[in-house]
Amino acid sequence: MKLQIAIDRVRVETALKMVEEIHDIIDIVEVGTPMIMREGMLPVRMIKEKYPGLVVLADTKIVDGGDIESEDAFEAGADIVTVLAVSADATIRAVVNTARKHGKKAMADMISVEDVAKRAVELDQLDLDYICLHTAVDVQNTGKTPLDELIRVMTVLKTAKAAVAGGINMKTIYATIKIGPEIVVVGGALTKAPDLRAAVIEMQKVIQGK
Amino acid sequence: MKLQIAIDRVRVETALKMVEEIHDIIDIVEVGTPMIMREGMLPVRMIKEKYPGLVVLADTKIVDGGDIESEDAFEAGADIVTVLAVSADATIRAVVNTARKHGKKAMADMISVEDVAKRAVELDQLDLDYICLHTAVDVQNTGKTPLDELIRVMTVLKTAKAAVAGGINMKTIYATIKIGPEIVVVGGALTKAPDLRAAVIEMQKVIQGK
Repeated sequence: MKLQIAIDRVRVETALKMVEEIHDIIDIVEVGTPMIMREGMLPVRMIKEKYPGLVVLADTKIVDGGDIESEDAFEAGADIVTVLAVSADATIRAVVNTARKHGKKAMADMISVEDVAKRAVELDQLDLDYICLHTAVDVQNTGKTPLDELIRVMTVLKTAKAAVAGGINMKTIYATIKIGPEIVVVGGALTKAPDLRAAVIEMQKVIQGK
Repeated sequence: MKLQIAIDRVRVETALKMVEEIHDIIDIVEVGTPMIMREGMLPVRMIKEKYPGLVVLADTKIVDGGDIESEDAFEAGADIVTVLAVSADATIRAVVNTARKHGKKAMADMISVEDVAKRAVELDQLDLDYICLHTAVDVQNTGKTPLDELIRVMTVLKTAKAAVAGGINMKTIYATIKIGPEIVVVGGALTKAPDLRAAVIEMQKVIQGK
């Protein structure tokens, strides 16, 4: 199981400082959508240049122009790009093909998908590497979690691996790892901790079962 | 009827040169999603600083974090931001509320919506300013156009205005203006023309019925 830390809405310099603090104890660093909207691919490029061995995910949430948008993200140094699962299959295919061309990976973000099991089967056949069950920040206050959907999707996947995101913290991580997705995405629970490195170490202990 | 020109995937300097050439004859300039992914809010900020009177749309295609992502775009100088119509209502509300706070506008992008008439009624009640029927670039080669959906949606809207995007060119503009949306979005048919200004003038003649 891998820990992906999502870095959102901070300046590039702050993001670089955060990565410096934890690059040796995280599996994947995510340049979050709000940061891409503010700064474009600059943070992806700078993190990858400084830490070429670190897996960088660009949370591009592509929904059209699958080839050009993923091309730009891979060219900037992303190892994984995200595409919305609600996109047309043509867009998904374009992202997957571009990933293959670069020897990189593609993740579908299941945000706003109504029938997650049905769409997961289709995405699996479209050769996605990861399928991420994702409860939007904007609906987390309703008590919704991505865990029920994660269970449902994991039973239907054949080759794609599952990822999960949406308000995961030190309380909910235990239930999450019991389900066993390939990637656990954690944002605020780590990035807003008073001691970022200590918080990552604590969470990795649970994830790695140490 | 207003002409919105979508500028995609060019460097900021190129975008600024294009806007310089046509700022006095277009109604809305769109900083397209591929450009935002590459450059963040920089092009929005630079265009607005140079042409404060020009209406700038940031095609952010927000799908979560409605408040912070729209806040950043409005702060950078956008007059209109886009939110995906497939987003949770909570996200749509957050974008609309942030727009109101700034005295600015919000457009829902109907890409990937299955039942456009049903969702349009809901979005209208959520107080969106514009609802944009949008055929993805990635599916335009199937022959799909947004015009049938535009007709269906325009019959159900009460306060929101309709916009339309997706492969519109000098051939299809006549059928489009007959339907009468508030905004017509044109991309490549103008931006890839040998003479950008001449192409805009030609299209505006049709749109304005001159």
